[in-house]
Amino acid sequence: MAIKNTILIKNGYIVTMNGKSENFLGDILVENDRIKKIEARIVDRADQIIDASDKVIIPGLIQTHVHLCQTLFRNIANDLALMEWLDIIMPLESCHDEETAYISAKLGIAEMLKSGTTTINDMGAANFATETAYAVKDLGIRAQLGRTIMDSDWAPEYLRHDTEKGLVETEDFINKWHGQADHNITCGLPIRWILTTTDQSLKGLKDIAAKYHVPIHTHANENLSENEVIFQEKGMSTIEYFCKLGLTDHKLQMAHCIWVSEKEKQILKENNISVLHCPSCNNKAASGIAPVPEYLSGGINVSLGADTAACNDNLDLFVEMRLAALMQKPRLGPTSISADDVFKMATSEGAKALLLDKQIGSIEVGKKADIVILNRSIRNSPFNIDNVIPALVYSFNGRDVNTTVVNGRILVKDGRLVDFDEHQLMKEAEYAIKKVIAKAKKLNRYQDKR
Amino acid sequence: MAIKNTILIKNGYIVTMNGKSENFLGDILVENDRIKKIEARIVDRADQIIDASDKVIIPGLIQTHVHLCQTLFRNIANDLALMEWLDIIMPLESCHDEETAYISAKLGIAEMLKSGTTTINDMGAANFATETAYAVKDLGIRAQLGRTIMDSDWAPEYLRHDTEKGLVETEDFINKWHGQADHNITCGLPIRWILTTTDQSLKGLKDIAAKYHVPIHTHANENLSENEVIFQEKGMSTIEYFCKLGLTDHKLQMAHCIWVSEKEKQILKENNISVLHCPSCNNKAASGIAPVPEYLSGGINVSLGADTAACNDNLDLFVEMRLAALMQKPRLGPTSISADDVFKMATSEGAKALLLDKQIGSIEVGKKADIVILNRSIRNSPFNIDNVIPALVYSFNGRDVNTTVVNGRILVKDGRLVDFDEHQLMKEAEYAIKKVIAKAKKLNRYQDKR
Repeated sequence: MAIKNTILIKNGYIVTMNGKSENFLGDILVENDRIKKIEARIVDRADQIIDASDKVIIPGLIQTHVHLCQTLFRNIANDLALMEWLDIIMPLESCHDEETAYISAKLGIAEMLKSGTTTINDMGAANFATETAYAVKDLGIRAQLGRTIMDSDWAPEYLRHDTEKGLVETEDFINKWHGQADHNITCGLPIRWILTTTDQSLKGLKDIAAKYHVPIHTHANENLSENEVIFQEKGMSTIEYFCKLGLTDHKLQMAHCIWVSEKEKQILKENNISVLHCPSCNNKAASGIAPVPEYLSGGINVSLGADTAACNDNLDLFVEMRLAALMQKPRLGPTSISADDVFKMATSEGAKALLLDKQIGSIEVGKKADIVILNRSIRNSPFNIDNVIPALVYSFNGRDVNTTVVNGRILVKDGRLVDFDEHQLMKEAEYAIKKVIAKAKKLNRYQDKR
Repeated sequence: MAIKNTILIKNGYIVTMNGKSENFLGDILVENDRIKKIEARIVDRADQIIDASDKVIIPGLIQTHVHLCQTLFRNIANDLALMEWLDIIMPLESCHDEETAYISAKLGIAEMLKSGTTTINDMGAANFATETAYAVKDLGIRAQLGRTIMDSDWAPEYLRHDTEKGLVETEDFINKWHGQADHNITCGLPIRWILTTTDQSLKGLKDIAAKYHVPIHTHANENLSENEVIFQEKGMSTIEYFCKLGLTDHKLQMAHCIWVSEKEKQILKENNISVLHCPSCNNKAASGIAPVPEYLSGGINVSLGADTAACNDNLDLFVEMRLAALMQKPRLGPTSISADDVFKMATSEGAKALLLDKQIGSIEVGKKADIVILNRSIRNSPFNIDNVIPALVYSFNGRDVNTTVVNGRILVKDGRLVDFDEHQLMKEAEYAIKKVIAKAKKLNRYQDKR
């Protein structure tokens, strides 16, 4: 008989997101990686008991668009347009080595676990996808991961590689990592940018997606000047081009989708494409305001992500939820998007975007035990269970996280990482960014914009 | 010889805001209520030593527009337009008693001290201004305070009072409180809304402002539908009407100023009127986006405030700084407003708005010792002193506050209020809101929108 590990979480305000808006005071029993019971009072014995009295329990948050390899580049390039920002960040990204790529991923994952994110979808990098996977495995977060192909003349020379090599390594990555790390890792196919990927690769990725039933993750329609370049090259938008190539058959995940025509909205809707909304970066790079209320009313699935710490400069999904709710209202009115809409984007709709909605996105019996427990404080007082979701969106913050459970494992306890020393991670990060910048300077790839 | 109380803050990254962009690693000596020395290394003895190694030291933040009497109403009315929101909140405000008004102010001040705000400008209330002053005195924050007059037919009946009484009590309040609480309290003249105040009161307030040299604080041009009503009544905008009455001679502080004509901008500029910008509430109530970059380039002083926890639903100025920077960029481009611009609004420009710039707003020898020390963590790592202000605006958060010093007194230490128990404050807040709602129900002034 297999050994059962059990956790009993007692007496918290549970926000289930089970589709029936059920929020109540109660207990949750976790057995191994699953939620076994949710009841007003559970009397079972358990290996570990967590007292959640006076605390709020939510499903682990889901970030459907992040760039772990850029966490080290936080606060380096500020108040710049997207293309100028990329001119600073891409060269730095090319100066990672295995060690710095691993540290960058680790720093980002640690921050997300501490702020209540239990699942991420990483855009990956052309190099060191393996180091990202090891960081995911070592820290215990749930993740959709892949290797990114950058093989066209549009890719900077220092990141460009052979087409065949990219496709082979992509398939190797899936074979090695899909379903690994206690089933925490699933694979996706990240396509960094339509123009930095050759048509040969796009077609190859379509075949891989079909063979392994994995989703495709890309950036689309982020910026007006970017849209123009793509129109010049392809005669159509990213969304239309992906549709033309038949990539839309494969559970597309498209980050940003800010500047989108009615025709393109129709493509998103008809092909069940998920929009991955990243409000902080969209604002900071002055890209624009994504028409999220229009997507929601049109039945298009929208999820959330912090995108990159190099632009955001956070990876806290509470920060994104608040901004996602606030930024639409001056444009469309106070009822255009509600706290409930936004909280769904961060939980149940995020799970749908990653094709994991049978596993995660709500607190329900049989689902994976990805659970976050939040402290209440004077910052979110007075508190009322009837109004918990607006409080979560407008008053709570990732810094209120007390406990993070992923796949039935307690990774954050009393606000601290259980297995990793935060001070040590900071020291590693400072060492690593110095190492990357030194290499960038040596290779003449460094622009100091600080 | 008077006894000197001294604090030596050692080895922190000091952001001075002294007008010369001086940020460096060093020590600060506080003597009684003043900053005595700022040097790379200070060897003087001191009563208290604070080790700020690896921490960031900033001038205490200044919130130039808050409503302490509404802190209790957090998360009660969400995703509503300004007027609908007021229809819920104003009746609740009228159901305060002395006890609940005091608790509401205390809860708000505690939250602000914990998140790095050392000075506030409160809009006050028609009732219980005294209780607010006692909360300010008891908690030790620096504040500009006043009694609010609501005496016209536009004021809700349950808040309306006699004109003469309002003016007499306003002057009494100044006589009682101006310069009190170790000089932490200065008085201002809050005018809640142009239409809820009679012309007789406006003229009376002008005379009081001249007699006592105190500034006038009001709301102006917040909302398009509000602007229309004011035009119908007065034939001009709030800004123009205040100008016509000569109230602009008296250091006007005008919150919001979202919908403002070129002519009105000219009035703001020519009369040195300070705009008090409150981005979260402007977004949440869908009021609009204030033209802050245009104000800054036009030489108009702009400061920041969280406004009210009943709409915001925070009182954390770091949250406002980030939103103030991000919300302008989609409209005007990534360089339209910088992290530096915003950090000035929260410090030096806030001090100017309150006529306290000789006393506070920067870390300089001779100024009041209003100082905040921030923890660094993986959330704002890697960290570089050369880039500290963008990090403060985009990555730090009020929850990173380690120590808050106001007027040379340590009020927050290791992230906790020194003299007040947070759990106890939460219990008081929950008791008080229940008491207010019970009274509102009894008086038929309660709308349940939760």
